[in-house]
Amino acid sequence: MTEQTAPIPHGAPGYQSHKDDYLKRLRRIEGQVRGLQRMIEEDTYCIDVLTQVSAATKALQSVAIGLLDEHVRHCVADASPENSEAMVTEAMAAIERLVKS
Amino acid sequence: MTEQTAPIPHGAPGYQSHKDDYLKRLRRIEGQVRGLQRMIEEDTYCIDVLTQVSAATKALQSVAIGLLDEHVRHCVADASPENSEAMVTEAMAAIERLVKS
Amino acid sequence: MTEQTAPIPHGAPGYQSHKDDYLKRLRRIEGQVRGLQRMIEEDTYCIDVLTQVSAATKALQSVAIGLLDEHVRHCVADASPENSEAMVTEAMAAIERLVKS
Amino acid sequence: MTEQTAPIPHGAPGYQSHKDDYLKRLRRIEGQVRGLQRMIEEDTYCIDVLTQVSAATKALQSVAIGLLDEHVRHCVADASPENSEAMVTEAMAAIERLVKS
Repeated sequence: MTEQTAPIPHGAPGYQSHKDDYLKRLRRIEGQVRGLQRMIEEDTYCIDVLTQVSAATKALQSVAIGLLDEHVRHCVADASPENSEAMVTEAMAAIERLVKS
Repeated sequence: MTEQTAPIPHGAPGYQSHKDDYLKRLRRIEGQVRGLQRMIEEDTYCIDVLTQVSAATKALQSVAIGLLDEHVRHCVADASPENSEAMVTEAMAAIERLVKS
Repeated sequence: MTEQTAPIPHGAPGYQSHKDDYLKRLRRIEGQVRGLQRMIEEDTYCIDVLTQVSAATKALQSVAIGLLDEHVRHCVADASPENSEAMVTEAMAAIERLVKS
Repeated sequence: MTEQTAPIPHGAPGYQSHKDDYLKRLRRIEGQVRGLQRMIEEDTYCIDVLTQVSAATKALQSVAIGLLDEHVRHCVADASPENSEAMVTEAMAAIERLVKS
């Protein structure tokens, strides 16, 4: 579902100087999702599984907010005048998806 | 963070008859999170990464709603009269965490 | 949009013993929404308007969680055996709308 | 709760050319909140009240996304170089509040 992504010319992604940090956070989330599978396999009480799902969801949303911050700060702010409008439209669509997810 | 989980006596979890389905969905989410790591490693454009984060978040929320449905249907509905009040309180706390996450 | 509301027989609403409390909270939210109109009329800085919108949204969600709590506690819990299944389905649809809104 | 609002110099708000539109939407939301009071007074079935609360919440979030769009498009994009960083930080804090509300 990348239909909103207009082919706006862009260089290095905004998160580039923090790649290691994002990779570490995503590996931790991957571990949480694997932990969820273990919980289901072991018939863990529903409510405890749900608490863990909420934690993973929050961690993912926090990654999204971080990526968005770097995108606006580095990519949107540095857009050339002719791309600026399109980049704001694109960023707003991503924000809207986030708010609604 | 299981502080809300009072030690209410409970038998098999509500999702038991759909364990395979939940495991399959969680494995797919694990794959999405690993895909996110690959995207970061390959310097994928921020907005495309964000679209993928939104998809994983939605998949997790959908798992949560499913688990909650089974919990209310099987565990809360079948609670003994003396546990019923406590189970509703516990389920509502889980719902509130979901709504706010 | 009340298409999910099956005509399940029901007596007094679950919130009945707290009507005054809910009315007071809704009147306060109405005041917040009127305050928002004033802010727009007076050209208040966007970010300050947004902070106020977030406050009103949170207050509404908190009313929703309260109503849902009373509904599950009083209506779903007291449903007759033949209505119980339908009431849980109906309540879960409301929870899903809440989580996604 | 305007603690995040640094005193960044700013001119006309970004929504200025659409004030009438926002006022109309907020008046409609005010009407929805008044309708909710009437529903409570008339002992309307909990689930129907909840459907209406979800509708009002969605309408408020949609106003927020609109205001944010205009703010980023008109205020952040036009910030002077020395204010740009502070304006992005401020906008991101507003976005984070929205995502979490």
